[in-house]
Order: sequence, then C-alpha cells, then structure tokens
Amino acid sequence: MPGLQKKWLSAALVGTLALSSLSIAAVNAQGNGNGNGNGNGKGNANDKNAESAKNVIMLVMDGSSDNVSSIARWYKGESLAIDKILTGGVRTYSAESAITDSAPAGTALATGNKSNSGYVGVLPSLVNTPGVDQVAEEDAFKPVANVLEGAKQTGRATGVISTSEIQHATPAAFSSHVTKRSNYDDIAEQQVYQNIDVILGGGSDPLNETRKDGDNLLNVIEEKDYDYVTTRDELLASDSDKIWGSFAPTALAYDLDREKTKPEEPTLAAMTEKAIDTLSQDKDGFFLAVEGSKIDWAAHANDPIGMVTDFLAFDDAVAEALEFAEQDGETLVIAVTDHGNGGITLGNVNTDSTYDTTPVSAYIDPLKEATMTVEGALSLLKEDKSNLEEVAASYGLKNLTAEESQALETSEDLGTTLVQLLSNRANIGFTTGGHTGDDVFLYSYGPAHPTGLVDNTDLAHTMASAMGFNLDDLSNEFFVDAQAEFEKLGYTTTIDKTDENNPVFVATNNNRTITIPENRNTVTIQNGNSAGNTREFDTVTVYNDNKFFISDEMLKFAK
Amino acid sequence: MPGLQKKWLSAALVGTLALSSLSIAAVNAQGNGNGNGNGNGKGNANDKNAESAKNVIMLVMDGSSDNVSSIARWYKGESLAIDKILTGGVRTYSAESAITDSAPAGTALATGNKSNSGYVGVLPSLVNTPGVDQVAEEDAFKPVANVLEGAKQTGRATGVISTSEIQHATPAAFSSHVTKRSNYDDIAEQQVYQNIDVILGGGSDPLNETRKDGDNLLNVIEEKDYDYVTTRDELLASDSDKIWGSFAPTALAYDLDREKTKPEEPTLAAMTEKAIDTLSQDKDGFFLAVEGSKIDWAAHANDPIGMVTDFLAFDDAVAEALEFAEQDGETLVIAVTDHGNGGITLGNVNTDSTYDTTPVSAYIDPLKEATMTVEGALSLLKEDKSNLEEVAASYGLKNLTAEESQALETSEDLGTTLVQLLSNRANIGFTTGGHTGDDVFLYSYGPAHPTGLVDNTDLAHTMASAMGFNLDDLSNEFFVDAQAEFEKLGYTTTIDKTDENNPVFVATNNNRTITIPENRNTVTIQNGNSAGNTREFDTVTVYNDNKFFISDEMLKFAK
Repeated sequence: MPGLQKKWLSAALVGTLALSSLSIAAVNAQGNGNGNGNGNGKGNANDKNAESAKNVIMLVMDGSSDNVSSIARWYKGESLAIDKILTGGVRTYSAESAITDSAPAGTALATGNKSNSGYVGVLPSLVNTPGVDQVAEEDAFKPVANVLEGAKQTGRATGVISTSEIQHATPAAFSSHVTKRSNYDDIAEQQVYQNIDVILGGGSDPLNETRKDGDNLLNVIEEKDYDYVTTRDELLASDSDKIWGSFAPTALAYDLDREKTKPEEPTLAAMTEKAIDTLSQDKDGFFLAVEGSKIDWAAHANDPIGMVTDFLAFDDAVAEALEFAEQDGETLVIAVTDHGNGGITLGNVNTDSTYDTTPVSAYIDPLKEATMTVEGALSLLKEDKSNLEEVAASYGLKNLTAEESQALETSEDLGTTLVQLLSNRANIGFTTGGHTGDDVFLYSYGPAHPTGLVDNTDLAHTMASAMGFNLDDLSNEFFVDAQAEFEKLGYTTTIDKTDENNPVFVATNNNRTITIPENRNTVTIQNGNSAGNTREFDTVTVYNDNKFFISDEMLKFAK
Repeated sequence: MPGLQKKWLSAALVGTLALSSLSIAAVNAQGNGNGNGNGNGKGNANDKNAESAKNVIMLVMDGSSDNVSSIARWYKGESLAIDKILTGGVRTYSAESAITDSAPAGTALATGNKSNSGYVGVLPSLVNTPGVDQVAEEDAFKPVANVLEGAKQTGRATGVISTSEIQHATPAAFSSHVTKRSNYDDIAEQQVYQNIDVILGGGSDPLNETRKDGDNLLNVIEEKDYDYVTTRDELLASDSDKIWGSFAPTALAYDLDREKTKPEEPTLAAMTEKAIDTLSQDKDGFFLAVEGSKIDWAAHANDPIGMVTDFLAFDDAVAEALEFAEQDGETLVIAVTDHGNGGITLGNVNTDSTYDTTPVSAYIDPLKEATMTVEGALSLLKEDKSNLEEVAASYGLKNLTAEESQALETSEDLGTTLVQLLSNRANIGFTTGGHTGDDVFLYSYGPAHPTGLVDNTDLAHTMASAMGFNLDDLSNEFFVDAQAEFEKLGYTTTIDKTDENNPVFVATNNNRTITIPENRNTVTIQNGNSAGNTREFDTVTVYNDNKFFISDEMLKFAK
C-alpha cells in the first residue's frame, strides 16, 4: 500500500466499526456448487441437510493416502481415533486433472468449488474434467466464499491450524483468495484482516521478514489485540480469546523430530485442543480448520516413517476434536485427506510371492528403528558426511549390509537413498513422488455428518448447511466486481499500481474518492479534502490481478 | 472311495431322507469369532444386530484395491453401482500375515475366523498377528461353519458364483473345508454334497477330468437333480430350482475377452441375475455368494485394463443385486474386496511433477485403446511371434515408438513387457505383483447392513446375525470329532485309507459298523451282515488329514 494510505489506516483502525453481514442466506437444500462431477454420490452427502451443528471442525490430513492408516495402526499397535468415525469415501479430482493439487483440493473442501492447480479460493479458468460444469469465462479467477467466512457471518468464532506455514495451500483455502498458492504475501495479509480468532501454525516469515511490500503484519496483529505467541508454553499459557501462534519461520518440525530439533513447538493435538478450548467459549459456536500438513511432504519424499508418525500426530488431533464433540453433542467433525500421495503400500516387490506368510513385524519392526524422519536425520549430517553412518542409524538403518553401505556412500541424493533403503527393509512400496488420484476415506461424526461416497466439494456444502448458510449466495454477497458496480453508479474507477506490491482500487465521482486496498477489509471515503473516513468490514477485498472484488456491504456503504 | 461303498451309496441315494438340523442357535449379539484383531471397529459392525434380513447377497471383488474403483469410474464415464452403497472400510489381515491370501480372507468373510495362508474354512495353526486371539493347539485345522451352511439350516436357498473355477479359494470358503486351497478334488466333492441350489462358474475339470480318485461328480450332480448347464444360453433357458452351471474347464474368460474368445460363456451379471431369480423363489429366503475372481489375477499380472474391465463386470453384478434388493426391501447386500493387490495407482513416476495438470484423458484414453486383456491378447500370439505387432495393438499398444518396439522385440516375458508399456502410456503405477495390506472400502445396503471400519471376520457374523444364527454355535454342531465321540461310546475307530484318495472313517462296536466317507453328507450303518442303511444329512463330513469331523446330528443318528 502507498505510505499515505497506511497512515490513514493506522489512525482509522482505532474506533472503527466492524459491521457484520446479517443477511445470511437460507439453506439451499441442494448445496450444489459448480463442478460436482459424475457419480459423486451427492445424494448421500446432503441427506442430513435438515440437521444443524453449532460447531464444525474440519481436519485435513494432507496427502495421506488411505493405506497410511493401516500401516500407522500396526505401527501404533492399537486402534486409531479415526477408526471410530469412518463413514464413506471422497472423490478428489480437480477441474483440470484427475489428480488434484492441494490448492484446488483445499478450495473444494472450503468453498465447494472445483478449481485449478495453484488456485486458492477462486474459480477455475480451465475445466476439462468430465462431469465438471464449465465456468463462464468472465467468472474465471473470481473469488468464492469459504466456510470460515460463512461461519464468521453467523457470529461463530473461527480458527485455522496447520503444521506447515499457515499460508500453505490448505489453510490458505479456508482463509484467503489468491490465484497463485505461492503468493504468501497476499495470503498472509488477507489472513491478518480476516478477523479469525485463532491462527496457529508455522509461517512467521510472510508476516514480516520476507514480504515484498515492506509491511509488518506483526504490528497489525498487535493492533488487532491478538495474543501473539511463538512457543508451546506461551500458547498453553494464553487466556486470550484471540490468539495468533506462529511457531516457526516456515513449517513446524515433523512430529517425530520435534523433541530433538524444535522442542519449543507445540504438537498438532496441543494446538487443536487449545483452539477448541478458546473457540468454544463463543456462545454462537465455532468453525475450526486443522491441517496435518507434512504427511504430504513425507509422501512426496517417499519417507514412510515421516508419513506414519505425522499421520499419528494428526490422529491425535482428531482424538481431541472427537473428545470435545462427544461431550458437546452439537459438533460436526469431518476428517479427510485432500488427496492420495506417493502410492504407498504395505507390501512391495520383496513380497511379490511371500506376502501371504509375512508377519506384521516384518513391516513394522524396521520402521520402529527410526528415531527421526529423513528430513530430521539429514539435518544432522555434517558437511563432510563423516557422520553418515550415525545419520543412517537415526533413520533406522543400523547394521548396514555391504550393499546398503555402498548405496549410501555412492549416493548422489542421500534423501532418496535413505528412504529407499528403509522402505526396502520395511517391505513398503511407492509408485510416485507425486499425488495420486484415489478416492479416499471419509471420516465424520456428529450432527449432519456426511456419509457414503461424496465429492470433495460436497463437504463444503454439507458444513455450510449444518451452519445455516449457503456458500453460493455468500459468494455473491462477499465478492462483487467493484469496477462494474461503481461505474454503474457513475463513478470513474482505476486501479492505482503506484506501489506495485499494493494495488489500490480507486473510484471517484465529483468530489468523492473511494479508496479500497487489496487484501484488507477496509474502505476509505474522502469528500473533497477531508482526511477520509475509513470503515472495516468482515470480509476481505480480493484483487485477482484483473479485478477488485469487494463485499456487497462495503459497496452499499461506500456508494 | 472304495468301489464297494460307492455302490452302496448309489443304491442308498434313492429314497434317502434328508434330515435338517432344526436347532438353530439364538443370535449372539456379540457375533465374536476368534481373531478380531485390534481396532476393528466391531461396535459399528454389530450396531444393527437386532435387524434381520430374509435374503443375503455377498459379492467379493477378489484382489481389487480401492484405487481400481476411481480408475474404473473414469473409464466408464459414469457412476458405479457400488458408488451408491459405500458405508465404511474393512481390515483384511490374516492370522499370520499383515497381507492376506484369498483362502484365509474368504474364510474370514464366510466363517468369521482368521486363518492361515491356503486354509479354507478351517481354523489356523499359526497365529502371530498382534491382536488376534490364539487358537488352542487341538483346534488347529478344525473346520468351522460358514454362512452358507448356516443359511441352509434356516431353510434358505443357497448359491455360489465365481468367474474362476468354482473350487477357487473364495467360492470354496463359502462351501467347503480343506487345509489346502489347491485341493480342488476335495473342494469339488464337498460342494457337490453340500446341497447348494445354484452353483455357477468355471471348474468343470475337478468334477471329473482331473480327479485323482476317479470319481465322476457329474453323475452325482445328475443324481441330485441339478439342471447341469454349460453355456449362457442353457443357463438362461433353465427353469429348474437347482442349477449347476459349469462354463469352462478352469476359469471363465476375462470380461473384456469373452465376446472374442468365449462368447458362449455368461457374464457375471447374467449369472447373478439368474441365481437371484432362481433362489428368490424360496419363501424362506436365500443366501448367495458372488465372486468377481479375475480382478485379482489381472492385478497379479499388473494388467490395468484387465483389472478395470473385470471390476466393471463385477459392478454390473452388484447392480443386479441392488436392483433386486431395492425392490425386495428384505435383502442385505454386502460388496467387498478380500484384499488389495498390485498397489495400483492413478499416477506414477511419469506424473511425479505433472500430476496436478494432467487431465483425466491422459490416463483413460490409452486404456480405451485396449480391446483385450493381456491374457486375451497373448492367446492370439503365433508361435513364431510373427503377429506380435497385432497382439500389441489388441492390447492397446498401437503406433509403437521405437523404444516400445525394441522393448517388445527383446522381451523375455512378453506379458510383463506389455503391461508395463500400457501402464506407462496410461500413467498408472504398481508397487508389487502380490497382494497388499490396505484397509479396503466396505459397500453395503439393506437391513442390518454394516457400517464404519470393521474386520473382515465381522462381516460373517453380521450376515449370520441378520439370518438368525450364530456361527460359533453352528461350528460346534456341524463339526464334532468323530473318533473322540465314538470312542466315548465304546466304539473302536479307524481311518481306512485303503483307497488313499478316499479315506473313510469306520467305527465298530460289537456287530455294528458305522462307515463315514470324507467330503460327503452320508453315513452308512451295518448291523451284522446287513447291506447297510445309508442316510444323508445337510452338512458335509470333513477329514483334515488328521481327524474326521461329522455333524452332531449324524453322530446322534449313528450312535
């Protein structure tokens, strides 16, 4: 943003009036967004639309193929929290591909719309998946409302948690609208201005350190009366009803590595428990999105122990959600993976002809030897690789065979070699370093919980219905084309890119100048030479590199 | 059997009295067999035990990993029959291994007991899977009752269908008890004497051609008033209430190949529809077990098009079952795979970094080119391989690249090369040529249908409860230790192995000689020099290479 405008805002924030949209649309019993695809079992997902839920908790185990659950259950030696709530399956494809990226997957889960690779909370520009409805050319890249934004409008408290940067695709999809998932600057800014009550995860860098626009969002977080915490102990000690926890510059450590490398970081379960404790104080209920982010990263790396242990950390978070939901009785809990990843199987070429007599221990004992993930183990490697044997041992590779030693010594990519050796010992197979196109298990519990085979987009509509709003109607309310609307009213409009990192929408009519910055929830109105009157709203303004989208409420106020 | 005894039986069969056990045990609401394992979500499986079902249809898609369904749905271009009835998941491990063989998997589904590799309808001798209850040493190899045997006792009609030999592991588990799944002679003989109403599938050889004991079971089938049919047309024309359809010496053709290679064979859906039409005439209801057998075989071969098309043929059979169940309202339908196989994924190393922008067509179009499975295509290959290009084309490999041509020309295993080339074109990955250890989707519909995560053994108990009996009680009724019981009564016993392929249990007491052949449902009683009195019962006698097991009813009659 231009420096001048920044000053206006700093002043204006004191005593501004937060308006709330009270015009929550009636529930649409069909809950249909675009792109439901063929054979998505939609009927099942919407059977229970009549039911409502005071609270909704959605937990996403990013990139965790279904097969991870069976391996993790043997590894743990007892049943999983999610075992109690398996109710169906989910289709995961995107608008353009059979295998989804996390950004359109998150967009589907959060907004009920299929989208494209890298798109967060906006409509697709390319639809080629059979059965997915085309999107009108003029609607490409248009922001669409997500369930967190809907929950806010009903007076519910809201929260977002992840173990990666909080700006990563999945948490971003529940809290922002950008055309490129890598655009952490915009995502972070929108998150700060979304008035979310509890945000916990990694990603302090995009709040300040790595921003191109020079903004320091930490100041805004402070002005907005968040309790800003950076360690597990600070988090647990907080008694604020607004908490911003940023526990790492980028992602948090893997669960298996944390005690050794980042003991000050909280577990996903601890973050989830604290968020629920905090948000559940709101008499209107709450919405909470939780992501176990790094199962996906371990899957990309084909690291079986990273997958299993971060999956179990996720399962512990599900246990926290279920413990609350069981006592509460008014809480809908949904747990899903957004897509498969890695094609992991218990069984590989080693067991081609011996699978039927190979005991559980042959798979699990080698995994039990690992005390760190491959990322954690490699972080211990000295530059001269003199401690390679020790590093391998921490990854479970003790008593190396001659063949294993040679593979390590001659490796040009130690990470790949390490995971291959452990997977070989554990008889675990992988088909790819990328995502996969499987239908995945659906886990759900509580009022209005979805069952059967559903589309990932159905889940957003199910949550919205349970909370009493309709996402398509909200999209129309929250995101109107500012240029078109102001020009209808006789305004002259422009997008001021004087500061290329902070484009500003400007509409003028006679003496009246309306200024709307991207990514924020504010509008400033100047009449003549007045200092300007700045108002805050509940939703953020989105600039999709083509158009500015503002809320209908902001438009009505400003015009 | 000894020649003499055969004669007795031939004579005795005329006018014998089929006794029926009326002492059906009360429903055990726990439905617990041995080996439920840890975390099996049993509670879910038994929630609806109070409900009963007049008819039960279990359909098993052998070796069909969950991922096959998503690939098959894209291939078909519309939703699947099973999409409507996804209700949970199933754990599939055996008593000795994390990855099950089809024999213990079938045994779990049919009898509610975990068992060992190769064991059909008998208890395990080795239990090492965590959470599975040990089996007493003296109970190893003991036959246990299956749901078809239970259904018979309630007066229900029964049927078994498969696309492989009907003696193959899964259909065998619903109709026989042997310690080695390869023992087709004993399986076939038990099936013939089980008084099953409808048997449809492959496997005519073990009825006569390949039998070691020289028996001709086709004669017995005729004596038992079956309508014996060998083609689709004969099957559809039959108006008998007892049909034995044997459409191939071994397995039926793959669905994709049938029209070209075996047009006289029926589809799985046609067999299922005919069986339901026939069995549903019984006012007491029916039990039907259906196996789509060769998805598994295609998976072992890593043949994606064989898997997909035989899966779709199975789905068509599910559609038949559902059509009946929806109209009938008193039919429980369960569809499952018995285990994963092949580790198939949509996505492979080709898509490591392009998955998120690769359209559905990139996976499906190459599969659409194939007009035969790899088995079917190779059946066309001339000995001099002069038509290799044509064979490859029928497998979808047209317009070969230089690399593909070279791979085929230099291949030492054409089947493997062909499937690798097609999978590469279709961006489909595999991790193994063996089974895998995944939890798999549970599909169910109708009264008492199971939901949530269950153990494969739970499904047998769910079906038994729905039909009003308890499998553990039936095991005790149907399989008592003949030697121990007759010796208690003062008999001298022996196992007569004069004909090594037809061992016979003989008990003598004073002038009374009791003769009980293995695999049949008969006992012959001679007093002094009488010609003997032969009676038939409803269950078969099992010799597990150690002991003879007969029904309590036979024991009471004979003693």
